[in-house]
Amino acid sequence: MANHKVFYSKQRVYWDMLDLLGVLHNARYVVMFERARFDFWAHLGVGPEAPGFDWPYLVVRNEVNYKAAIRSEQEATVSVEISGIKSSSVTFRHTLIDAAGVVSAEGSTTLVRVDAESGRPVPWSDNFRKLVGDYVMEPERPL
Amino acid sequence: MANHKVFYSKQRVYWDMLDLLGVLHNARYVVMFERARFDFWAHLGVGPEAPGFDWPYLVVRNEVNYKAAIRSEQEATVSVEISGIKSSSVTFRHTLIDAAGVVSAEGSTTLVRVDAESGRPVPWSDNFRKLVGDYVMEPERPL
Amino acid sequence: MANHKVFYSKQRVYWDMLDLLGVLHNARYVVMFERARFDFWAHLGVGPEAPGFDWPYLVVRNEVNYKAAIRSEQEATVSVEISGIKSSSVTFRHTLIDAAGVVSAEGSTTLVRVDAESGRPVPWSDNFRKLVGDYVMEPERPL
Amino acid sequence: MANHKVFYSKQRVYWDMLDLLGVLHNARYVVMFERARFDFWAHLGVGPEAPGFDWPYLVVRNEVNYKAAIRSEQEATVSVEISGIKSSSVTFRHTLIDAAGVVSAEGSTTLVRVDAESGRPVPWSDNFRKLVGDYVMEPERPL
Repeated sequence: MANHKVFYSKQRVYWDMLDLLGVLHNARYVVMFERARFDFWAHLGVGPEAPGFDWPYLVVRNEVNYKAAIRSEQEATVSVEISGIKSSSVTFRHTLIDAAGVVSAEGSTTLVRVDAESGRPVPWSDNFRKLVGDYVMEPERPL
Repeated sequence: MANHKVFYSKQRVYWDMLDLLGVLHNARYVVMFERARFDFWAHLGVGPEAPGFDWPYLVVRNEVNYKAAIRSEQEATVSVEISGIKSSSVTFRHTLIDAAGVVSAEGSTTLVRVDAESGRPVPWSDNFRKLVGDYVMEPERPL
Repeated sequence: MANHKVFYSKQRVYWDMLDLLGVLHNARYVVMFERARFDFWAHLGVGPEAPGFDWPYLVVRNEVNYKAAIRSEQEATVSVEISGIKSSSVTFRHTLIDAAGVVSAEGSTTLVRVDAESGRPVPWSDNFRKLVGDYVMEPERPL
Repeated sequence: MANHKVFYSKQRVYWDMLDLLGVLHNARYVVMFERARFDFWAHLGVGPEAPGFDWPYLVVRNEVNYKAAIRSEQEATVSVEISGIKSSSVTFRHTLIDAAGVVSAEGSTTLVRVDAESGRPVPWSDNFRKLVGDYVMEPERPL
């Protein structure tokens, strides 16, 4: 298996993100995964407003498996790697790791590039494939 | 296959829930699924503050498959049924249907009942199993 | 003092909107005020997507005075009336009333109509003034 | 007028915090002010879970005056200073400054310390007054 890169996004867990049970609310993980992808784009020098970037795309699937609750304000880390890329879709694999290094959750998000007007799927450009190529796990491993 | 019941939660999609692309943000679906479960508890006459209710529980898994974007304020419907119940866990199956009757997303959430002090899994009570029994799909169907 | 109308928006307080102290989070009130205004627009048959509506506008001021905490899921009511309208701005006055009829908070929001391209203030149209006229408190009363 | 200290909290504006008009949503400022106060507590070595800290308190007033919209992901700065402290209440003054140094909003939040059981106001401890003393603007200046 070829080596691949992993990107890490540092993100703050704030008090208001804890729910009435005192744990980081389950939906927040989905937001933190998305924010990690935006940090990933910024790290690569692209993003929604960058000319030539394959934007927009829509989320077509989210999966989160929660392992250990986060119970306080802290700086967490979200990992970003790509488990597979197809014609118009790409699947990210994410891990959210708490400040003590414990895996709080694992998950994945699948995006589909769409045409801004029609909303129909559009194939990723060669530039995009080149851009993310180092972060693709090969061969694709199921979550 | 025995019949089972489905509960429907009516929920508002507000303007602030649409993201910069003009679609209901993907993480909002996870929140709307959870709110549907709380509406389900209220429909059954129970809830976090009801004496004897099997509370607390934690979310251990979320899965959302997005089918059609929601692009405006409206009243949506979230369905609640149970695809399986085990010793300490229960898996809900949800569908979010837009105001025109189109399925916007399908998904599932798995909860595990935990002890409030230790955080360790605790088996569901017989009362809980009786309470939700009518909503359990049998035999269990994978999402 | 002439009579004026008040619009009431019914809104759900969900479990996830309660914070770790068990009260409706203070920032949620600002969102609920905004949602009440969107309900108000819908009641008047207009809104962001209605042709000829004075859109967009930006929020230039928010003020919330909290009176009594909300501590459980419930249906709350947000009142909408207009304390004053000037050339390009309008100030709404809101009250959030809990399910028992207790005033939980009072506040106000000032909007300024802006040009979509330049972001510069634009005077409200006569249509807009006619549309909201019945809801304007006269003479203007400070909060 | 005696000198006083100002604390600065660095916070990220993420893509999902921009609304459909492409600007940082007005309610987010209230959350960012609160997060700045929690950063302030952490800077002082205290916080909700610190033994002897004057917790809990409730927000009794929020005011935000918006000056310039924030239109992209960036790192913003929220200032924290105290415009006045009374028997059971304290009023913070906040400024949110964008990545280019432009003041995006000014505002204030008033907190009241309450008894955890009764919810009744409780005077701040001498320790608390000593803790925040350097950040109090004197004489009190209205917003």
